[in-house]
Amino acid sequence: MENGQSEAALRYEALTVDTLATRLGDVHEVASRVGGEPASWEIREVGDGNLNLVFIVTGTAGSVVVKQALPYVRMVGESWPLPLYRAHFEYYALVRQAKRAPNIAPEVFYFDKPQALFVMEYLYPHTILRRKLIKGERVAHLGETIGQFCARTAFRGSELSLPSPEKKQDVGLFSGNVAIPAITESLVFTDPYYGAEMNHHTPELSPVVDELRRNVRLKAKVQRLLMKFTANTETMLHGDLHSGSIMATDTDVRVIDPEFSQYGPMAFDLGMAVANFLMAYFSQPAHRKDNVLATYQAWILEVIEACFTSFDAEFRYLWQTERTGILFPRALFEEQGNSADDACDALLDEIRLDALAYCGIEMHRRVLSLAHNADFEEIEDTALRARLEARNVLMGQALIMNPDAAREVPALIELAQAYNRQDVL
Amino acid sequence: MENGQSEAALRYEALTVDTLATRLGDVHEVASRVGGEPASWEIREVGDGNLNLVFIVTGTAGSVVVKQALPYVRMVGESWPLPLYRAHFEYYALVRQAKRAPNIAPEVFYFDKPQALFVMEYLYPHTILRRKLIKGERVAHLGETIGQFCARTAFRGSELSLPSPEKKQDVGLFSGNVAIPAITESLVFTDPYYGAEMNHHTPELSPVVDELRRNVRLKAKVQRLLMKFTANTETMLHGDLHSGSIMATDTDVRVIDPEFSQYGPMAFDLGMAVANFLMAYFSQPAHRKDNVLATYQAWILEVIEACFTSFDAEFRYLWQTERTGILFPRALFEEQGNSADDACDALLDEIRLDALAYCGIEMHRRVLSLAHNADFEEIEDTALRARLEARNVLMGQALIMNPDAAREVPALIELAQAYNRQDVL
Repeated sequence: MENGQSEAALRYEALTVDTLATRLGDVHEVASRVGGEPASWEIREVGDGNLNLVFIVTGTAGSVVVKQALPYVRMVGESWPLPLYRAHFEYYALVRQAKRAPNIAPEVFYFDKPQALFVMEYLYPHTILRRKLIKGERVAHLGETIGQFCARTAFRGSELSLPSPEKKQDVGLFSGNVAIPAITESLVFTDPYYGAEMNHHTPELSPVVDELRRNVRLKAKVQRLLMKFTANTETMLHGDLHSGSIMATDTDVRVIDPEFSQYGPMAFDLGMAVANFLMAYFSQPAHRKDNVLATYQAWILEVIEACFTSFDAEFRYLWQTERTGILFPRALFEEQGNSADDACDALLDEIRLDALAYCGIEMHRRVLSLAHNADFEEIEDTALRARLEARNVLMGQALIMNPDAAREVPALIELAQAYNRQDVL
Repeated sequence: MENGQSEAALRYEALTVDTLATRLGDVHEVASRVGGEPASWEIREVGDGNLNLVFIVTGTAGSVVVKQALPYVRMVGESWPLPLYRAHFEYYALVRQAKRAPNIAPEVFYFDKPQALFVMEYLYPHTILRRKLIKGERVAHLGETIGQFCARTAFRGSELSLPSPEKKQDVGLFSGNVAIPAITESLVFTDPYYGAEMNHHTPELSPVVDELRRNVRLKAKVQRLLMKFTANTETMLHGDLHSGSIMATDTDVRVIDPEFSQYGPMAFDLGMAVANFLMAYFSQPAHRKDNVLATYQAWILEVIEACFTSFDAEFRYLWQTERTGILFPRALFEEQGNSADDACDALLDEIRLDALAYCGIEMHRRVLSLAHNADFEEIEDTALRARLEARNVLMGQALIMNPDAAREVPALIELAQAYNRQDVL
């Protein structure tokens, strides 16, 4: 699928609505799926994200999505350069996800390395999950699908499953993606906890923010988690599994945009996904009222429960059926008449605790650092927004400081309900 | 220092005593240090290790050591091939160690990549520490030097100190050294705990071995530590820091042979070094008697105490003076008027616990797996050997199962003394 043209032969040039048909019109993998004369293709640029160009290309046969990296951070501008090679890693991540958790990531049809672009499946009528959660729409099997996706990619990308030389080679490959982990490291783990330059937060939230930033034990715990994140290669992560990286219909759930993919701790994607469900939960009082509010918030908590439950169930199933790597080998357990089930439970327990702590960190950075969530950000009444964000920030702090108290899902749910009732502002 | 010849131009050929002078006689970095006519160089092959060719080359000006990898495991033969590139990583490790912990690793004068050889400082009158420990010789500042070496390499090879892009690039480089971690992973972490093909142990030790291998919780703990080892890139390890990788005079301590170097947990080298001191301790009753035995064993325990104490002291010093990486940044602590000392203590506590567990694993593999220690192996009375090995194996088990009980050095010392008095065989 990688084309053979040398980087020198094909200098990078950003696509535009006007040049796309000419430049991709003779690429069979694209033209055959779009259909008709390239000159008559309907081309829309829809990149509402922070970093890239995204085009939807439609012809007589169908539609595809063309995604191309820009050499800078789109939401900031050319003053923040970002290497094009991140698109290569996004492509590598997509093909690995397709193998490890089939039918969740969009299918990739074509990859052009020098142009830092790839062409993939157009998901329709899917919309971004975050918008659905703000609108109060439900998605069947949402928690189950995300929990299962996290378990499958975590397990099958690790040395519980992969041959070690293959996994280590892949760690070497992904270690080339230096610029992307650097963003996660500072924006997620460090910036929220001091007055970093690009931070912003709702003005009325300041008392809560100031107190949070004085919590030395919290900062130390977060830095220890950063150390685990940055020096851990357990598995290939999605790396940015928030509700803007999930597209859904009422019944189908897909995961997109793994450009922050890196090797990291098994718990990370799970924790980040749950954090985004919790932020949807805490923001709901600004988006709907009364009974509708209560039942929709209850549904979000069910999604969180399903997410954890299905992660554990799928991980246990893979542990029984696909444990072919060097870790916890059958030669030491089953082949000696010993069960390895307790070892699986102990590992899942560790993953749960780490996931809760990473969850707390994500809950912080989305209201304190550079990239905020629309769930809160679209609340125009800043006093109300701050009140809801405070619940979220304080629950995040509790999860980082004492994940053990929320280890069992019912306790986590109760904790969320308690913070949802409690106002410090 | 890397020479410019292409790999194709210079096909690998193993050196011999007869060809060495011809092949290295015109290399300035070698010839100038050895001195005199290459034809008159005195050349001895002294590789008593498991893997490589090692020559001492002496001329009118001095001596150098030439080390060349063989394309197979020397102690097993051509039936166990092993890639030559491991010599490149040994070279990379030596130059990094020279920078991070000066004057401990031998100085490297010349590196020939295609020939998988390098030329380095001849350490004289140093001898292998293991031989000294078997003979009952003391080395001044042994524990202090090893503890300090472990702390310096651990801290300065991590993102507590290094710029993240540099460290991540280095992780990518070292991830190419696939064959070497694979050996550590199986020989150290897995083979000891079941009847792996290449294992051997003292026959009289069998009852202890059988019981150990039935301990499912132990095996699960060790595999969890393997998972941490194999998916952790905290720092660049020596990777094989046993008493055969240490050379010493009465007053000088040097560390050699980092060919098992890889990125891994900060606690690993420290744990392995202490394990080898403990094995020296437990083997002493076979090597000397009465008062001499008691005072020499007491000295070894002092070495262990100094090793841990100086590791902590040096790590704390570097934490205060060289914490320039992305982890626990001053912007979050000192610059906010917060001390980061507690965070350092908490990290050192974690390192200590992991070091004790890795220590226990090394104590096991050296009597149960392929590569045994001369400390025990040279005890001809196998009943006595098994009795001493049993003490070592059982203390190792205690350290893996409950490192917390030996967290404070005095408790660790008492534990060693208790196992030294206790016989199960």
